[in-house]
Amino acid sequence: MGLDEQAMPFIDQANIACGFHAGDANVMQRTLALAKQHKVEIGAHPAYPDLQGFGRRSLQCSAPEIINLIHYQVAALEGMARCQGLSLSYIKPHGALYNDMMSNPAVWQAVLQAVARYHQPLKLMILATADAARYQADAAAVGVSLLFEAFADRRYTDEGKLTPRSQAGAVLHGDAVIQQVQQLLQQGSVTTQSGTILPLQADTLCVHGDNVAAIQQLHHIRACITACQP
Amino acid sequence: MGLDEQAMPFIDQANIACGFHAGDANVMQRTLALAKQHKVEIGAHPAYPDLQGFGRRSLQCSAPEIINLIHYQVAALEGMARCQGLSLSYIKPHGALYNDMMSNPAVWQAVLQAVARYHQPLKLMILATADAARYQADAAAVGVSLLFEAFADRRYTDEGKLTPRSQAGAVLHGDAVIQQVQQLLQQGSVTTQSGTILPLQADTLCVHGDNVAAIQQLHHIRACITACQP
Amino acid sequence: MGLDEQAMPFIDQANIACGFHAGDANVMQRTLALAKQHKVEIGAHPAYPDLQGFGRRSLQCSAPEIINLIHYQVAALEGMARCQGLSLSYIKPHGALYNDMMSNPAVWQAVLQAVARYHQPLKLMILATADAARYQADAAAVGVSLLFEAFADRRYTDEGKLTPRSQAGAVLHGDAVIQQVQQLLQQGSVTTQSGTILPLQADTLCVHGDNVAAIQQLHHIRACITACQP
Amino acid sequence: MGLDEQAMPFIDQANIACGFHAGDANVMQRTLALAKQHKVEIGAHPAYPDLQGFGRRSLQCSAPEIINLIHYQVAALEGMARCQGLSLSYIKPHGALYNDMMSNPAVWQAVLQAVARYHQPLKLMILATADAARYQADAAAVGVSLLFEAFADRRYTDEGKLTPRSQAGAVLHGDAVIQQVQQLLQQGSVTTQSGTILPLQADTLCVHGDNVAAIQQLHHIRACITACQP
Repeated sequence: MGLDEQAMPFIDQANIACGFHAGDANVMQRTLALAKQHKVEIGAHPAYPDLQGFGRRSLQCSAPEIINLIHYQVAALEGMARCQGLSLSYIKPHGALYNDMMSNPAVWQAVLQAVARYHQPLKLMILATADAARYQADAAAVGVSLLFEAFADRRYTDEGKLTPRSQAGAVLHGDAVIQQVQQLLQQGSVTTQSGTILPLQADTLCVHGDNVAAIQQLHHIRACITACQP
Repeated sequence: MGLDEQAMPFIDQANIACGFHAGDANVMQRTLALAKQHKVEIGAHPAYPDLQGFGRRSLQCSAPEIINLIHYQVAALEGMARCQGLSLSYIKPHGALYNDMMSNPAVWQAVLQAVARYHQPLKLMILATADAARYQADAAAVGVSLLFEAFADRRYTDEGKLTPRSQAGAVLHGDAVIQQVQQLLQQGSVTTQSGTILPLQADTLCVHGDNVAAIQQLHHIRACITACQP
Repeated sequence: MGLDEQAMPFIDQANIACGFHAGDANVMQRTLALAKQHKVEIGAHPAYPDLQGFGRRSLQCSAPEIINLIHYQVAALEGMARCQGLSLSYIKPHGALYNDMMSNPAVWQAVLQAVARYHQPLKLMILATADAARYQADAAAVGVSLLFEAFADRRYTDEGKLTPRSQAGAVLHGDAVIQQVQQLLQQGSVTTQSGTILPLQADTLCVHGDNVAAIQQLHHIRACITACQP
Repeated sequence: MGLDEQAMPFIDQANIACGFHAGDANVMQRTLALAKQHKVEIGAHPAYPDLQGFGRRSLQCSAPEIINLIHYQVAALEGMARCQGLSLSYIKPHGALYNDMMSNPAVWQAVLQAVARYHQPLKLMILATADAARYQADAAAVGVSLLFEAFADRRYTDEGKLTPRSQAGAVLHGDAVIQQVQQLLQQGSVTTQSGTILPLQADTLCVHGDNVAAIQQLHHIRACITACQP
């Protein structure tokens, strides 16, 4: 919790794990209390049931299985949030479920259905990519609102995807992060691997809060956002 | 699910496991659908996290841990129920958590707090015992409504507790079950181990639906209840 | 355990789940005791870690992850077996891990490595298919001995694979099972979906012991095997 | 793993979690490789199945359940160790299982039986207390050898137990740790809460490796041990 406490003052939205890849009822209760204290918007971060693999391994699930596992996790967090007088704003799938949602149309449709059929209107947070319009249309068809997130510290491919971590240069460091944030905020674009300027409209910036370096970077990104705002 | 399907038409209330001792998101979804079809009232059946032991082993938890694990499980089920247009009526702790609640004052207070602080008013189902007034007073002090359940097929001690399963005669069979049900319904009492008549006011009768014999008994109990009603 | 007790007298080899898709230390201890009583050869039945999905959902694991999860499960069972004076004979992956092993070359190589690097020589049980020679060669290259299993109650495709359960006629019933067993034993072949005679050399026949009908069939298959032996 | 890598060079024995309270097959494989590299003796660290509670919550298990859960975990680690050419030396129960073993005679006997019936002779590591002779006698009766461990950084009660963490002064810091280590090594005693000198024979010193301060202390303790040896 040490790092959560350090990160929380600098963020606007917190993705909270729901016990399937990390967290449990006790961790969730404390994270919710911290989010409340710092008036941070909260989102459910459901994942494949894979504590061993931290939700980073794809699990071949049917559409009903995906809908059920999302409903279970989101509901668990939502109810705990309400016990503290908080409400959820959005759902952001975690790890392999997030990647599968962006790359596998069947998973994408199952996730959309899960959000559409949830008993409360919640937004769905997905990756800001070059083909946002297509995702937008699919979501609109089932009445789901999307939030697009960009990554501050990941290099984009020319297709507007994240460069896989297995490739050199996939993760940005230091000034390169701040430059990417500035470009996103001021020009609504990123410079890809090949040097191309790719338009990218993002509603939110994803940062990580699980290591000391990330926390430090967070200060700079926050300052950068503040400076960029009129 | 076979037995659930057979039991559901004969019951008024279904205790639904929430994934910590049995069930998972898929089983919960199907059980909720079945309850909906048969217009059966639903209750959350939270337990200690112990799939291996089916929630029957006591786990030494602090009060906040008990509150959190109840909130998590109840919330997960409640949200899934709402996705089917259903709402929960009550909470009934399962297995060792139920026994600890009835025998350990610290666990009883923690369970009460969990129900009291839940964001929705839900009733708490506990064992009908001879000292119901004491439980009633504790619950009223935190604004919680109780439901008392009696067991159709368990012999009671003179103290109004269930005879432990380890003792001979703890479980009633055949006509003895029907007689106990009739006595509960018509006289508001049970005949204990020693032959004493013990007054016992119950709001609900607990039956099990996990074996074929239980399902058959269910028919007789249902008929008995119908016959007893004016 | 009821059905295990009924199945054990009729089988020669028992695949024992190791806690990742089913079973736990207590169930394993009892199944081992039962196998000992009936002098049944035992094999480890490791799976992807997926209790919710009974190991039937594919989990995208790296080769080292597959090796580690197999070693952990096999070792747990082997040590418990030794505590009862038993030793393991073979490893048979379960569910999605079994299917992936037969269809995904990377998983097949990882499983082979797991068996080859295990500290004891154990055989690997795989599906008897038309291209057994290829599997045989791969296994020989790393010093692993294979056991080929045929399915008594599954219809084969012309390629010597099992007809997927989602297709009509995938599962054989009644006399068709006995006919397939006789043909396997006497002619070393199966008649496929299309009516083709496909040679299939099997060391062992797979039957299931988890439902009452399966147990009954087991009697007939046992009788058939006994009758076929010279 | 970062801290494990830093601690391993300074220790003689590593207690390795077996997946029930922490660790999994992948973590175990890496920790074993690290122990091998540093020629550190290894022990199995079995626990109650309680990942959420890190094995620190007591779970009411029967004696057969305790035996089975210890056998499963020790066997899993032992088989994985053998795959790397290593062998286990001892078993040290973790967390609540360790505490219950020291305070609950039924748990103590179950743990003894688990070690006695394991298929390999392994030592059992328990807390060095003032009544070591009694534990020694019980263990000898079932043919189990004990290792007694003393805690470098915990204040002892006059009864030779650890002062509960909930009490002030339970944990020693800085020079007090080094003094306790010196006294244990040179005089075979500790100075208790009340200032009494209590004889305590220990075979091994327990240190923790899960935080940065502990790692630093480890250097001092190692130096102290080296200096104390003739």
